[in-house]
Amino acid sequence: MPKPHVLRRLAACLSPGGLITDAHAVRPFETDGLTAIRERPWAVALPETAGQVRAVLGVCRDEGVPVVTRGAGTGLSGGARPRRDGVLLTLSKMRRVKEVDLDACTATLEPGVTNLAISEAVREHGLHYAPDPSSQIACSIGGNVAENAGGVHCLKYGLTVHNVLGLRVQTIAGDELVLGGKGLEQPGLDLLAVMIGSEGMLGVITEVTVKLLPLPPVKRVLLAAFGDLQAAGDAVSAIIAAGIVPAGLEMMDNPAIRAAEDFAAAGYPRDATAVLLCELDGPKAQVETDTERVRQLLETGGAAVRVARDEAERERLWKGRKSAFPAMGRLAPDYYCMDGTIPRSALAQVLGDIAELSAEHGLRVANVFHAGDGNLHPLILFDANEPGEADRARALGDAILRLCVRAGGTVTGEHGVGVEKLDAMCEQFSAAELDQFHRLKAAFDPRGLMNPGKAVPSLARCSELGGMRVHAGKLPFPHLERF
Amino acid sequence: MPKPHVLRRLAACLSPGGLITDAHAVRPFETDGLTAIRERPWAVALPETAGQVRAVLGVCRDEGVPVVTRGAGTGLSGGARPRRDGVLLTLSKMRRVKEVDLDACTATLEPGVTNLAISEAVREHGLHYAPDPSSQIACSIGGNVAENAGGVHCLKYGLTVHNVLGLRVQTIAGDELVLGGKGLEQPGLDLLAVMIGSEGMLGVITEVTVKLLPLPPVKRVLLAAFGDLQAAGDAVSAIIAAGIVPAGLEMMDNPAIRAAEDFAAAGYPRDATAVLLCELDGPKAQVETDTERVRQLLETGGAAVRVARDEAERERLWKGRKSAFPAMGRLAPDYYCMDGTIPRSALAQVLGDIAELSAEHGLRVANVFHAGDGNLHPLILFDANEPGEADRARALGDAILRLCVRAGGTVTGEHGVGVEKLDAMCEQFSAAELDQFHRLKAAFDPRGLMNPGKAVPSLARCSELGGMRVHAGKLPFPHLERF
Repeated sequence: MPKPHVLRRLAACLSPGGLITDAHAVRPFETDGLTAIRERPWAVALPETAGQVRAVLGVCRDEGVPVVTRGAGTGLSGGARPRRDGVLLTLSKMRRVKEVDLDACTATLEPGVTNLAISEAVREHGLHYAPDPSSQIACSIGGNVAENAGGVHCLKYGLTVHNVLGLRVQTIAGDELVLGGKGLEQPGLDLLAVMIGSEGMLGVITEVTVKLLPLPPVKRVLLAAFGDLQAAGDAVSAIIAAGIVPAGLEMMDNPAIRAAEDFAAAGYPRDATAVLLCELDGPKAQVETDTERVRQLLETGGAAVRVARDEAERERLWKGRKSAFPAMGRLAPDYYCMDGTIPRSALAQVLGDIAELSAEHGLRVANVFHAGDGNLHPLILFDANEPGEADRARALGDAILRLCVRAGGTVTGEHGVGVEKLDAMCEQFSAAELDQFHRLKAAFDPRGLMNPGKAVPSLARCSELGGMRVHAGKLPFPHLERF
Repeated sequence: MPKPHVLRRLAACLSPGGLITDAHAVRPFETDGLTAIRERPWAVALPETAGQVRAVLGVCRDEGVPVVTRGAGTGLSGGARPRRDGVLLTLSKMRRVKEVDLDACTATLEPGVTNLAISEAVREHGLHYAPDPSSQIACSIGGNVAENAGGVHCLKYGLTVHNVLGLRVQTIAGDELVLGGKGLEQPGLDLLAVMIGSEGMLGVITEVTVKLLPLPPVKRVLLAAFGDLQAAGDAVSAIIAAGIVPAGLEMMDNPAIRAAEDFAAAGYPRDATAVLLCELDGPKAQVETDTERVRQLLETGGAAVRVARDEAERERLWKGRKSAFPAMGRLAPDYYCMDGTIPRSALAQVLGDIAELSAEHGLRVANVFHAGDGNLHPLILFDANEPGEADRARALGDAILRLCVRAGGTVTGEHGVGVEKLDAMCEQFSAAELDQFHRLKAAFDPRGLMNPGKAVPSLARCSELGGMRVHAGKLPFPHLERF
C-alpha cells in the first residue's frame, strides 16, 4: 500500500476536494459497468485540467503507484476496475467542449464530455458525432476512445477509431503528446491509432478532436421478419453485396423479439424466428432508391417486410431494439452480455451452435446484434441466486467466445478486453503477438504503472491456461473465475 | 561492410538467382521514385515466399546487417533508398492474389501485387480496391501499406489505412505477426494501424488483406472555372459543408491548367485562375441530386461550370488532371513535387503565400492538388543544369513545408517521410513525440536494423537544425542537402 505522504502529494496536485480516500465516498467508484467485479480504490483523484492530470501522473511515477483511468464508468469489460494499491484517475470533471470548428467539421473536447453531449452541442449547425454506443447518454468521449467504442451505426460510420482525428495524451514519463489534428493524415508512426482502444495502458487522454458529420436529411427503417435463421443471415450478406451500406442493420432472434415486444410493444412479429431492422439514411433520393432495393432483397430472401411510414413508427421500431437489454429483466433476474464478432457468412451457423451450447449448459440465450458487421451480443439469462447458475453462465460465455474465434472472428467487438476477456485473448493471439503488445506498452510505460494487468494477458497466464492458441476444445478457459 | 560469408548465408535462404550483388545488376535498385538520391545496395534479395523473407531477416539479425525493404520502387520520399552496408529486400516476386472472398468483400494478396492488379482481379465481380495513387499501374500494395498511400479518391474512400483489414508481418525477431483479419475490429493494441505507414521500420509485410468496394454504378464529373483563388477555396469548403462527399475534388492553378491543356487538350479554360474538378459517384439517383447541388454551389461561388455529358468527356477532363505532372516537362527540364497538407479553410491564403515565395526564390510553381482534403502538391519548376537552381528549388520546397505546418497542416500528405522529409519532421513534432516514435520502433526492432535512418529523425539531428519546433522562420531547415 502506498504511504500516507503520497496522499498529501496527490492532494497538492488537485483542487480542494479533488482527492477522495474516505471508504464511504469511494464506494461509487468500486466498479464500472461490469458490476460482477469490485475493488476499493486506494484513492480517487478528480483532476480538472490537463496540468492536474500531469501532476498526478508525476507523483505516481515518482512513488511507483499504479494508475487506473476512469471516464464515466460505463465500460462493460472491467477496464476501469480500480486497484487497492492505486489511484483511480477519474476524468468526469473535465467536461468542456473546447472548440467547434465548423469549417473543418471538428469538435475538440475534454475527455469527460459525454458522447451524446457532443451531438447536442453541434445539432444547431446540422451536425452530429456518429458513433453511438448504447450508453451514449452517460459514457464519455475519453472512455469511448480508450475502448474504441462502436454502436448501432458503426457499420456505415465506423468505430471510434474512424471518427477521432486528434488527441492530447499525458504520459507517465511526464510528456504531453499531440497526436493527429484536424486533418486526415499525419506523418510518422500512427500513435493516434495506437492510443485508440488502448484501455488506459499507454497514457491519459486529456483532449479529443472528433470528426463531425452532417445530420442525414432522411432516415428510413425497414423491419423484416424471417421464419429461418439462414435466410436472415443470407439477407444481410445480400444487402452488403449489393453495395448498400445501411446506417444500421440489426438482428434479433425469437427470444429477444418476444422479450422486446412484451416490454415495448414495438409491433414486432412475436412468432418470427428472426427480425432484421435495417435503417437507411442520407439524401432523400438515395434513401428512397435504397429502401426499394433493400425491400426487394429482403422479400426475395423470404421475409415479410414492413417500411416505417413515418417518424413515429420508425422510433417505435427502434424502441423495440433499444429495449431488448432492459427487457431481459422480465425473463430472468440476471443476464450476462457477451460481445464477439464473426464473419457475416457464418451468422446462421454460429447462431445454431449457440442454441446447441445453450441447451447443453441449460441456460437460455437471447441474441441481439449488429448483424451488418457480424458483432454478436448473446445475452445469457441466469439467476445468480440459484447455486451454480452464475458459473454455468460464465462457462457458456467462454464457450461462445471460443466459437467466435473458431468461426474466424474475434473475442471482442466493441466492449474492450478489460479484465473480462484476458483469458480469451490467449485464444485469439499467439505468444509472439502478445509479446509484441507488451513491448508496445513498455514503449509508453516501461515500469508498468498504467492500468496494470488489464487488456493484455501475461504469457504466463496464457500458458497456465493450457498453452497458447490451443484450438479444438483443449483450453479450459474459465476466464471469469480468474478476475 | 558485411562479410562474404554472410552473402553465402543469404543466398542459401533464397531460390537460385534470388540474390544479386553484381555492381551492374544492382543498378536499377539504386534509387526509388525520389531519383535525386542514389545509393548502391550491398546485396539485393528477391524472396519468393514469406519463409524466405523470414530466413533473410534471420541472417540479417544474426549478422547485424541493416535491411531496407522495397516494393515497386515508386515511392517519392526515398523510403527505399538502399544502404551500402545493407540488404535491399525486394518483394517484387511475391505477386500472387491469394484469395478473393466475395462474401466478406476482401482480397488477400502478396505484397508485390500492384495496386491496379487488385482492381483488375475483382472487376468481373463488380468490385474494386479504392485507393488509387497516381503510380497505381506500377506501385505495389506492400509499398502502399508502408507509405499509407492516398490518391485522388481518398477524400471519399480514405487512405490505405482505411482500406486495409489485415496484415501478416515478419519481424526482425523472427516472429510472424497476424494483425487484423477480414473484420472491422480486433482486440488488443492496434498493431495493424501502427504497421500502416511505418515505412519499413518495424517489420516486413508478407501478406495484405484489403477491403473491396462495389464499383460505383454512376460517375459524373463537373469542371468549374474560377477567376479568383479565394472563391475556389470557398467553393471547396461549401461543398464539404453541404454534406456532399465527392469521390474526387481536385484543384489546379493557372500554370498547371495551361500546361495540362497544352499537353492533353482536355478542354480546360486556359485563362481561369483556378479550376476545380469534382467527381461524384454512387447510385444514379444520388449522383444526379448531388451533381445539381454541387453545380448550384459552384455557380453561387462565381464559377463557370460544365458537367461532362458522357463518359468520353469525363475521361477527357480527368486526362487533363492526370497529365499535369508529365506536362511539366514542357515548362522546365526538372520539377520537384512537394506534398503537404493544410486545413481546407487556408487554401487561398496558402496558395497566395506560395506565389510570394515563388517570386522570392525566382522559380515558377504550378499547383495541382487534392483540394477536398487539403493535400497540396506544389510542383517547383527548375533546371538542374543551371548552377544554383536545384538548391533554390530545395530551399523553396522547405519554405513551402514550413508554410504548411504553420497553417495548421502537416509536412506530408501521402508520400511518406523517407529521407526527404526527415528535417521537416523536426518542425512537425516535439522532442517528446519524436522520442515516443523511437521507443515504438525499438519495441519492434531493438537493434535498429530495419530501414535505419528513415522516417523519424534523431533528436540530435533536430537539435543540430537549431532546436525543436522553433517556429517563426528560425529553422535553417535545408533538408535536401542532408540526405
